Amino acid sequence: MAGNSFGEVFRVTTFGESHGEAIGVVIDGCPAGLDFDLDFIQQQMDRRRPGQSALTTDRNEADQIEVLSGVFDGKTTGTPLAMLLRNADQRSADYEAMKSVYRPSHADFTYDARYGFRDYRGGGRSSARETAARVAAGAVAQLLLRQAGVQIQAFVSAVGPIQLNKPYTELDLTGIDDSLVRCPDAATATQMEALITQLKAEGDSVGGVITAVASKVPAGLGDPVFDKLEADLAKAMLSINAVKGFEIGSGFAAAAGRGSQFNDAFEQREGRVRTQSNHSGGIQGGISNGEDIYFRVAFKPVATISKNQQTVTNRGEATELQAKGRHDPCVVPRAVPIVAAMTALVLADHWLRLRLAKL
Amino acid sequence: MAGNSFGEVFRVTTFGESHGEAIGVVIDGCPAGLDFDLDFIQQQMDRRRPGQSALTTDRNEADQIEVLSGVFDGKTTGTPLAMLLRNADQRSADYEAMKSVYRPSHADFTYDARYGFRDYRGGGRSSARETAARVAAGAVAQLLLRQAGVQIQAFVSAVGPIQLNKPYTELDLTGIDDSLVRCPDAATATQMEALITQLKAEGDSVGGVITAVASKVPAGLGDPVFDKLEADLAKAMLSINAVKGFEIGSGFAAAAGRGSQFNDAFEQREGRVRTQSNHSGGIQGGISNGEDIYFRVAFKPVATISKNQQTVTNRGEATELQAKGRHDPCVVPRAVPIVAAMTALVLADHWLRLRLAKL
Amino acid sequence: MAGNSFGEVFRVTTFGESHGEAIGVVIDGCPAGLDFDLDFIQQQMDRRRPGQSALTTDRNEADQIEVLSGVFDGKTTGTPLAMLLRNADQRSADYEAMKSVYRPSHADFTYDARYGFRDYRGGGRSSARETAARVAAGAVAQLLLRQAGVQIQAFVSAVGPIQLNKPYTELDLTGIDDSLVRCPDAATATQMEALITQLKAEGDSVGGVITAVASKVPAGLGDPVFDKLEADLAKAMLSINAVKGFEIGSGFAAAAGRGSQFNDAFEQREGRVRTQSNHSGGIQGGISNGEDIYFRVAFKPVATISKNQQTVTNRGEATELQAKGRHDPCVVPRAVPIVAAMTALVLADHWLRLRLAKL
Amino acid sequence: MAGNSFGEVFRVTTFGESHGEAIGVVIDGCPAGLDFDLDFIQQQMDRRRPGQSALTTDRNEADQIEVLSGVFDGKTTGTPLAMLLRNADQRSADYEAMKSVYRPSHADFTYDARYGFRDYRGGGRSSARETAARVAAGAVAQLLLRQAGVQIQAFVSAVGPIQLNKPYTELDLTGIDDSLVRCPDAATATQMEALITQLKAEGDSVGGVITAVASKVPAGLGDPVFDKLEADLAKAMLSINAVKGFEIGSGFAAAAGRGSQFNDAFEQREGRVRTQSNHSGGIQGGISNGEDIYFRVAFKPVATISKNQQTVTNRGEATELQAKGRHDPCVVPRAVPIVAAMTALVLADHWLRLRLAKL
Repeated sequence: MAGNSFGEVFRVTTFGESHGEAIGVVIDGCPAGLDFDLDFIQQQMDRRRPGQSALTTDRNEADQIEVLSGVFDGKTTGTPLAMLLRNADQRSADYEAMKSVYRPSHADFTYDARYGFRDYRGGGRSSARETAARVAAGAVAQLLLRQAGVQIQAFVSAVGPIQLNKPYTELDLTGIDDSLVRCPDAATATQMEALITQLKAEGDSVGGVITAVASKVPAGLGDPVFDKLEADLAKAMLSINAVKGFEIGSGFAAAAGRGSQFNDAFEQREGRVRTQSNHSGGIQGGISNGEDIYFRVAFKPVATISKNQQTVTNRGEATELQAKGRHDPCVVPRAVPIVAAMTALVLADHWLRLRLAKL
Repeated sequence: MAGNSFGEVFRVTTFGESHGEAIGVVIDGCPAGLDFDLDFIQQQMDRRRPGQSALTTDRNEADQIEVLSGVFDGKTTGTPLAMLLRNADQRSADYEAMKSVYRPSHADFTYDARYGFRDYRGGGRSSARETAARVAAGAVAQLLLRQAGVQIQAFVSAVGPIQLNKPYTELDLTGIDDSLVRCPDAATATQMEALITQLKAEGDSVGGVITAVASKVPAGLGDPVFDKLEADLAKAMLSINAVKGFEIGSGFAAAAGRGSQFNDAFEQREGRVRTQSNHSGGIQGGISNGEDIYFRVAFKPVATISKNQQTVTNRGEATELQAKGRHDPCVVPRAVPIVAAMTALVLADHWLRLRLAKL
Repeated sequence: MAGNSFGEVFRVTTFGESHGEAIGVVIDGCPAGLDFDLDFIQQQMDRRRPGQSALTTDRNEADQIEVLSGVFDGKTTGTPLAMLLRNADQRSADYEAMKSVYRPSHADFTYDARYGFRDYRGGGRSSARETAARVAAGAVAQLLLRQAGVQIQAFVSAVGPIQLNKPYTELDLTGIDDSLVRCPDAATATQMEALITQLKAEGDSVGGVITAVASKVPAGLGDPVFDKLEADLAKAMLSINAVKGFEIGSGFAAAAGRGSQFNDAFEQREGRVRTQSNHSGGIQGGISNGEDIYFRVAFKPVATISKNQQTVTNRGEATELQAKGRHDPCVVPRAVPIVAAMTALVLADHWLRLRLAKL
Repeated sequence: MAGNSFGEVFRVTTFGESHGEAIGVVIDGCPAGLDFDLDFIQQQMDRRRPGQSALTTDRNEADQIEVLSGVFDGKTTGTPLAMLLRNADQRSADYEAMKSVYRPSHADFTYDARYGFRDYRGGGRSSARETAARVAAGAVAQLLLRQAGVQIQAFVSAVGPIQLNKPYTELDLTGIDDSLVRCPDAATATQMEALITQLKAEGDSVGGVITAVASKVPAGLGDPVFDKLEADLAKAMLSINAVKGFEIGSGFAAAAGRGSQFNDAFEQREGRVRTQSNHSGGIQGGISNGEDIYFRVAFKPVATISKNQQTVTNRGEATELQAKGRHDPCVVPRAVPIVAAMTALVLADHWLRLRLAKL
């Protein structure tokens, strides 16, 4: 109801502010008996953590997971699985100046409008730090999806105007982490990194696009009306800070085309019903059809920049702001594990929900 | 849990198959005391109903609303509001042939994969006929939003390659229904209608884009983490049949740009905090900021075409399909009230949820 | 949220007022492939319907079920199952006088307090007529539970001071419907019927107790903390009009005793772990243990009586009320199928939820 | 869905096992702006904590609350409020013997039946230790209810056969904590304490009854069908470990009586509509009427006793058990704050939900 939970069966609730004691997550509904691979979870945390490379913010958080409950003898128990991350490298002083000044395109004004006041330290609950808890939960979801054979990969396909235009099927997705920017095409990655480095120097920021692919998803996942699989994926993606767009399969391009071009003919192949093309992006009528699910997620440029900006105070007085907090010049390299995590949360939830569909 | 309900407080559950007895909707959570304007609701039904013009399917449904409960003395009572639409112009015979043949890019195969069998008559539950129930519920939501002063408008901004490129602020949105295609620019509308007419003659179909604008939305709507306002809007839109993409505010274009270009500077204007530009699309940190909320929704071409298509049967045998059911060559003109309805469901729900945010 | 739905997976939403067009129910989450036995459902309706015998109200409703959706070729489809009951024998004129007078121990005053006004005809939504929709839904739940082997029986174990004190294990529960009062002990039934007949003549009413037994429930049903199986049963029972108490297993008697008396020793029997006694009532730690689940439900006397009563109007003026509406002198004979239905809703929901507990 | 959350708007999720790292709770949906009185919360914890007196278990936990999120500048922020309790005085060795032996009338067998295995240390998640998290959350709910003027009091009204038979209106409820047993009648308290002391010496246990009273509850709380206020209270109470019965207002006694005796006549008094008697227990038609809400809760004797008991192992072999874990001879003195906490959770949730009932 208050929007801090996600999923129906595999249900995740996050808590915590950027500069509070800790952030964390409770997963309720993870089935008993799952091998709990803490190393895998920590790896995903490390892919998201700040301070991991020259391309990211200077805030430095080890983001070491502490498991509080729900695991016994190396397996999940079916009871709530709680994980905690202490906040360490807080510099609240950086933010004191912003107590009464609304940062443009941040959530300062809207939080005040909604709640009457806010924890202004580092953006409080609106900080992308909250997504660390999602990555932890999403990693558990990925462990669960291993049981279904599902593989999820996400990578950077655009940074500002630099786009990776090859279809994902022509890329080597095992090499995503070979570049700091997490683009699996080396030449494009180099360009992207150069642009980010340049913008960091200029005190500006830049947007980007992440492409995600979920393969070996069983047919039958997704509820057919409001909880269509693509609808839940869209919500999951738009719930990530700074995301402004989502398209699945042929996406916006399909809007410009004809049915005779964009329908996916069926055929029998490899012992099961397959489609010859995959304009649908692996989902038809809201339900997975066994083909790859792929989609693109658009991120706006980070709102925090080191340039003077016009704004107002919480008393409505005009003022000028120069941001002093640490920030990423481009969010997409660190957002890759977040997109993967949110994808996993949707698929794990629907994989469990499939158990309920028929007698 | 089974995905036929939408909304947390203003909660809508639809039921019914395309060729069953009836379709309908139950709204639970509409506050007591709202003036129930049945005429307005019926008008929205009429905008969606099949057979309304030469551009749409020949199926003819009067779609006359029957109110079963929840209204007394012209006002909502706070108890469940149930509305029923009898199915009238069913021609199940048209669909008998499709009992065992999977129509490409329809939900036939995926429903079988999920449920083991399906009501194959006219697509059953996967038919866009289900959206009639959403329009009825959405009209009630619009009545509720009138109390908040909110106005919702949706219009066709692209049909296939024909695009309306003017910003919505330069259009006269009172003229949306002046053209059959529901595009508020007369010259573009004429082109769109010509293309749809041509494709109908060719037995093909075409995609399109709908733009929606919600104005006078109070600041403070939206829960800040998973139930961000734009996340719920994205889910609402992707839950509509044939939708493949969503972008809000500057959307995918923002991914290509810089923070210094896309931030919305604050200023004091008209006695309240306003932004100078509106790249954010009226939402910041998941919460409305009082500016116009605007977004674009991409629809793929209708999957039903009158051309031969390769497919398989439910026993995996190759076969060729020529669709015989009635269908729209382009879904977007009739989808305009559906987009408006789903927008209203999201905003009405969050408008009520705002009552819970602070002491 | 607004309290008209019940169950998490097998989710039931009822709608309709006593004297409106119709009442009905939507079940969302019934798995596909269940044989839909409409005759069984109608039988349960007949057991609850008014006018069935001299012991009940004179209101006469055929309560013929109309199935609107969710069933195809005699099986559930996994999509929402909607059932409708038209109201027929309404006499709103009976109630016109009560428009502004609060009937003692009815919901008239509290509905006004909550909603500002109410549909006063026949109690509107607060009428026990709403439970007809529950019986229809509960009958579907019972069809589902047949797949699990579960049997549910409910019977009248007290009417006013007349109590059936034999343990249920000594009764022939196949004979519940042999008496109009639905007490399986013939001698006690005769006494109960005589008392009800006498009170009807006196214009008074009387309370009673219903005992329910669910046997062959698999071990493992129930979530261990808030959604304990007995907790959900308690809620289900207290949600029935006029219910004031609930006790499971040894109930209030256990509060007076010692652990050494009330613990249920385990033994291996019939190839599985069994308890020697069943003070627990078939549930331990919130989870079924495979023994009979049994509990007692206390109903207060019907509030509608044909005696003068002191009360106030909705303007706070003192007045005297003589009820004129038709009513039951004792609610428990007709409440037997309601208790069974609510029991079935809880067990069906948790039977499905068990599918989610482990890998 | 997995049953570790409670409430719709004021939504509480608990986590943690008896002998794991920690237990805790996340409250999602507490409105922003509430004064956060940590001292009051800690006081409630102290009333529940083990080792507080000679009448309770010897396990000694300080149960010091750590607030992780959701509070800033002494006020709730509207974001998730997480509280943590580290487990300190664990003696897992005590329980090693019970790894494979099912303790009678505990949840060992049923957890294995549901999940396939369990954290057996000290009962794991089925331990009453989980209720510490509820008391913390319930204390926050009580802070919220102060805003509504609501007062909640709970006290011990029976220990085994020793009953306090005076109506609560004749008791001085400010003196509940004057006795270790939390019975506000000094003479009865002395008897109760003597009995508990005797049973502790004998290695046996005893049941009891707690009576709760919520006064100054505004009229209008409760949803009228499934989420009747008494239904949610019943669920809340039956979700507490060892509870076997619940009755509200005149309860089971009403089942034996007549309408002419048990109806509550209305009158105008103190400027508002009041009832002359209160058989209803403050709730009519599922909605509060402004009178005192009072109910009784039956607790069975604690299952852990220091006597030899017959049982089986998890391989079905007969064995004899002598419990060695620390335990309370009678649970009700420590359960008083738990009953109060669960009452507060229900009322706080419905107090917020009332905001949604009308325009």
